Amino acid sequence: MVKVGIIGATGYVGAELLRLLLSHPKVKVAALSSVSFEGQEISNVYTSFFNKTNLICESAKDVIEKCDVIFTALPHGLSEDIAKKAIYSNKICIDMGADFRLSNETEYEEWYGKKFTQPEIHDNSIYGLPELNRGKIKKSSLIANPGCYPTTIELGLMPLLKNSLIKLEGIICDSKSGTTGAGRGLTLNTHFPEENETFAPYKVGAHRHTPEIEEILSTMANDKVNITFTPHLLPINRGILSTIYCTPQDNANIEEIYKLYVNFYKDEPFVNILPLGETASIKNVRLTNDCCISLHLNHRKDQIIIVSSIDNMIKGAAGQAIQNMNIVLGFNETDGLNLIAPAF
Amino acid sequence: MVKVGIIGATGYVGAELLRLLLSHPKVKVAALSSVSFEGQEISNVYTSFFNKTNLICESAKDVIEKCDVIFTALPHGLSEDIAKKAIYSNKICIDMGADFRLSNETEYEEWYGKKFTQPEIHDNSIYGLPELNRGKIKKSSLIANPGCYPTTIELGLMPLLKNSLIKLEGIICDSKSGTTGAGRGLTLNTHFPEENETFAPYKVGAHRHTPEIEEILSTMANDKVNITFTPHLLPINRGILSTIYCTPQDNANIEEIYKLYVNFYKDEPFVNILPLGETASIKNVRLTNDCCISLHLNHRKDQIIIVSSIDNMIKGAAGQAIQNMNIVLGFNETDGLNLIAPAF
Amino acid sequence: MVKVGIIGATGYVGAELLRLLLSHPKVKVAALSSVSFEGQEISNVYTSFFNKTNLICESAKDVIEKCDVIFTALPHGLSEDIAKKAIYSNKICIDMGADFRLSNETEYEEWYGKKFTQPEIHDNSIYGLPELNRGKIKKSSLIANPGCYPTTIELGLMPLLKNSLIKLEGIICDSKSGTTGAGRGLTLNTHFPEENETFAPYKVGAHRHTPEIEEILSTMANDKVNITFTPHLLPINRGILSTIYCTPQDNANIEEIYKLYVNFYKDEPFVNILPLGETASIKNVRLTNDCCISLHLNHRKDQIIIVSSIDNMIKGAAGQAIQNMNIVLGFNETDGLNLIAPAF
Amino acid sequence: MVKVGIIGATGYVGAELLRLLLSHPKVKVAALSSVSFEGQEISNVYTSFFNKTNLICESAKDVIEKCDVIFTALPHGLSEDIAKKAIYSNKICIDMGADFRLSNETEYEEWYGKKFTQPEIHDNSIYGLPELNRGKIKKSSLIANPGCYPTTIELGLMPLLKNSLIKLEGIICDSKSGTTGAGRGLTLNTHFPEENETFAPYKVGAHRHTPEIEEILSTMANDKVNITFTPHLLPINRGILSTIYCTPQDNANIEEIYKLYVNFYKDEPFVNILPLGETASIKNVRLTNDCCISLHLNHRKDQIIIVSSIDNMIKGAAGQAIQNMNIVLGFNETDGLNLIAPAF
Repeated sequence: MVKVGIIGATGYVGAELLRLLLSHPKVKVAALSSVSFEGQEISNVYTSFFNKTNLICESAKDVIEKCDVIFTALPHGLSEDIAKKAIYSNKICIDMGADFRLSNETEYEEWYGKKFTQPEIHDNSIYGLPELNRGKIKKSSLIANPGCYPTTIELGLMPLLKNSLIKLEGIICDSKSGTTGAGRGLTLNTHFPEENETFAPYKVGAHRHTPEIEEILSTMANDKVNITFTPHLLPINRGILSTIYCTPQDNANIEEIYKLYVNFYKDEPFVNILPLGETASIKNVRLTNDCCISLHLNHRKDQIIIVSSIDNMIKGAAGQAIQNMNIVLGFNETDGLNLIAPAF
Repeated sequence: MVKVGIIGATGYVGAELLRLLLSHPKVKVAALSSVSFEGQEISNVYTSFFNKTNLICESAKDVIEKCDVIFTALPHGLSEDIAKKAIYSNKICIDMGADFRLSNETEYEEWYGKKFTQPEIHDNSIYGLPELNRGKIKKSSLIANPGCYPTTIELGLMPLLKNSLIKLEGIICDSKSGTTGAGRGLTLNTHFPEENETFAPYKVGAHRHTPEIEEILSTMANDKVNITFTPHLLPINRGILSTIYCTPQDNANIEEIYKLYVNFYKDEPFVNILPLGETASIKNVRLTNDCCISLHLNHRKDQIIIVSSIDNMIKGAAGQAIQNMNIVLGFNETDGLNLIAPAF
Repeated sequence: MVKVGIIGATGYVGAELLRLLLSHPKVKVAALSSVSFEGQEISNVYTSFFNKTNLICESAKDVIEKCDVIFTALPHGLSEDIAKKAIYSNKICIDMGADFRLSNETEYEEWYGKKFTQPEIHDNSIYGLPELNRGKIKKSSLIANPGCYPTTIELGLMPLLKNSLIKLEGIICDSKSGTTGAGRGLTLNTHFPEENETFAPYKVGAHRHTPEIEEILSTMANDKVNITFTPHLLPINRGILSTIYCTPQDNANIEEIYKLYVNFYKDEPFVNILPLGETASIKNVRLTNDCCISLHLNHRKDQIIIVSSIDNMIKGAAGQAIQNMNIVLGFNETDGLNLIAPAF
Repeated sequence: MVKVGIIGATGYVGAELLRLLLSHPKVKVAALSSVSFEGQEISNVYTSFFNKTNLICESAKDVIEKCDVIFTALPHGLSEDIAKKAIYSNKICIDMGADFRLSNETEYEEWYGKKFTQPEIHDNSIYGLPELNRGKIKKSSLIANPGCYPTTIELGLMPLLKNSLIKLEGIICDSKSGTTGAGRGLTLNTHFPEENETFAPYKVGAHRHTPEIEEILSTMANDKVNITFTPHLLPINRGILSTIYCTPQDNANIEEIYKLYVNFYKDEPFVNILPLGETASIKNVRLTNDCCISLHLNHRKDQIIIVSSIDNMIKGAAGQAIQNMNIVLGFNETDGLNLIAPAF
């Protein structure tokens, strides 16, 4: 069994990762860390782990020492130093935060308000979207796990962009996320009576996933792609659904687009293209590592509409991190991730 | 007291209208009708009316005879005949269905699959968006109450379109509605365990509110406007929020746009323009007749993003119908509609 | 117009009270206070008041000076001093907290961990359950508005206790409340992802409403009544439903019990006894000042089961406070409280 | 791999069972049946199975022929005939309906309105609560899987009843269930806008699980036990929580009761006794086969309050059925059921 550990285990992403790793057939969770709960059993922090594990939160240093694969689930700015220590100790580091997602330091500074603290290791990192970078991930020891919103949008647009079928201007990404995306920290917006029975966008035109999406879409298109991205908060726990609008280069034929997508993703274990006429939903992907995509035209057939959904905590975070680990370690890519969405 | 009645009182729109009319200071609900529940007390159909009213469901004919103002809340195709009888008896008819919303019969046939049954009265009807047509509504006896989605989008775009500030192509309307919009009829999609904790669009590129929105926006722009409209179903009861994307003719200055909106709507009792930096939500408008609008730019400042929210059952249906009635009868436009959204 | 004010206006009870008072036909809200938000507009604290009122949060002292009726919505222990100042200035004080609900200081100390700070004014106070104490409320200037859970249980049991029809031992009160009862303060329990899709009791055997319920039930029975009370938290915003189990003195005849309740409450504007065979729910009372009661027997007919529901923020707090104000000021008891529950 | 099949696969219990069986390491789902959807792929009925299985709904006869273990998930009255065919063909039948839960035909007739149709096989059946009947289940080929509510109550009271520590009269079981318990059939009560944001009991004093609970509790007590049972419907998808009130024979010592429960269930893989001071919730057990129990006294220490929660679809139906199958087939009892509740 490969020994794995989680630094930042008491946030939502850390907790979900722990839940999934405890059922993985080829790894053993050897250590956890948490700054806030150091010394406490994880089952005290999340009672859902009562009688399931006796793991205790230790220090980040302990995790690096005891484990072969280190997952970091930290606020941005806190992973670079840990990642450096990990890879310099010949460990594998999979960062679920934002520190290594942007290759351009200027862009990072503009959106995150600080420079890279360990610039020398950024060239070692690879963006961990397996459907785009599987080959490079296999050879990497520092993986930047994608953001949740970006995963839906990048998988939704990749076949069109790689085949130069749409205009690179005017792409609209209208995304909606469940509340776990906002984390466990208490805020008025996520106080139950304030969030229940309402709905609204947030950080309109200003969300930090924007440069990540634009960088990766540009890589796919091999040209500069500009998007408009608006995230919204749904009064549900899990799931992201993005409705993506783009303009075809020529007359759009939805049957051909459908065939393109089916063919493009035919070997991907976690991307499901729904038959034409059906519509992707969050229900299809809850509690799985799947991305579900449906394809549509508007009534005038001059806009392509792509609906793309994931579980934000799994394919959007912990599950994709495990998928990346499976690739790096040469496991079956689906090990520990054979999950079927509950029907309800 | 003016005598008013509801034909189709046992659907959700009818029931909400009854609730509001029972508190209106200047009208008396004199009769209700329902095909399914004729002869039954409305408090048997909705227990929330227990001890609040003894009204019994009668026939449509009874309602027309007993009332001065007739509200019709019926599936499309069923209002034309009733409206004709009402106005030929010198009554006022406010139709909350789709029968009179489109002026173009060809377009109606294309989207609704049938011709007008009483084409001769369509010229008498006026589209009941008070902020657009108040003067004409005042003189009309047949009012087509707007659709719920169209109300958010039309109020959201009117100042820009009337001032020719945006391009008429490429407008994207991404709308999200609570489940009451789907009515009281039982469907698998609105079965609690299937709808709870999920989210998805529906009728992508094919929703019947599309031609209504395009016709009214074109009227505002005095030129042909094409939109892409995608409705989604939210797992909440009430409210619609539309996120609207459009391209400015020239460089967009958000402060000027804000001033334009504040000025444009300064005398409107039910349209609230939020200060720049704030974001419209469904919570702001729940259980009121208000439309709440916030204004944004994307990060590249080449797209205007308008967020527009209403309560789909009130400003999107029953409340706007009462607002129209108040206008026609010369009441204060806010009579019976002085509603404040609960904070939670 | 009578001038009224709210001390503690920015908590949920204060905000709900403000919303209702702004629509009351015979009073004017002359001042508000908030320790946390002094100097700020209330519409900055709750955007639902945007364009509805320009009131600014002042000091408690300002409220007492400017108003004839002072509502206090404060954590326990903070109302006594304010109430004293108010009534010594010949104002009316309606306290929505717990400071004056218990007549017995020893019991208060046991459950609240402190003594009365102004013991001399406690004799002036009256427990503001109008259905029990209407006559005394009318003559009082210091009213202890009942707790939310106690209101459901006391109204649910009063006819049986006043008529000595049940045993005074073994009464079980299993109560369930929406999350607004927990207030606006942020807690992990009311963080959306933690509270959504779950359900649990809390403070089992230890909730502070227990002595209040026992005192009032004992008054009704004219003998010592002991209860077992368990509150639970529902993943909804509003409403309390209590399921109350008690043992009849003799063979229970449900038709006679039903007639007793209908007769007992026949002149009460806010208590609705459902016909036998129907079941009280939160939906019946949401956003109203009503208490809805249904009556049942278990299958062996040796236990009476009473289901009693209210809106915890209205009949359980702000609405009952207004009802008390209406009584004291000689208004119609229903002024400002003619509310019909939305059907959805 | 043992071949297993589901008769009645398209109801909620059937679908959940299929989801779990598809991940079971030692069985293969060889056939499904559905009267309503015969001939259709199960992934057409539940899109969550898209790309997960190609199973097609066949006839009940096909399932019996092709499988070694047959699960029946049918409305009451429809399993007896199938069970007879199954066991007469030397197959194992696990019935998730009510047909074999009551040993007393008179009681069955009273509550279900019909007699046994195959009385001769009822003696072969065993009530499938493993914590009570493990030894007998192991030797049986016809297992009556317990009802969902009864599972919480029976596990909650077993240690007290088996040790004669409580009075057998006056036990109150106040239970609350998520909406999946009502099944996939469309009803007004489970229409999203009617069920969302409300809460109520149903079938007060008349729910069919009452005689099942009384029979099993009486077996445990070796004496007649009478209960009062009230089910309520929660606006969530999954989970049951029962709050159980009983009277101790002598002075109750909660520490001793706690030790008794810990010891009683110490070898049970699916029963978790929370430490004193903690409270069972639905969150602890969602999506698992666990039963979580917490123990409390009322403030006067004369009533024991037991809080017991399960996932109604798993320990309350499909999971317990698999647990029974594991026992009969000599598998590890936890095979396919090593599930950890998501933290959110």
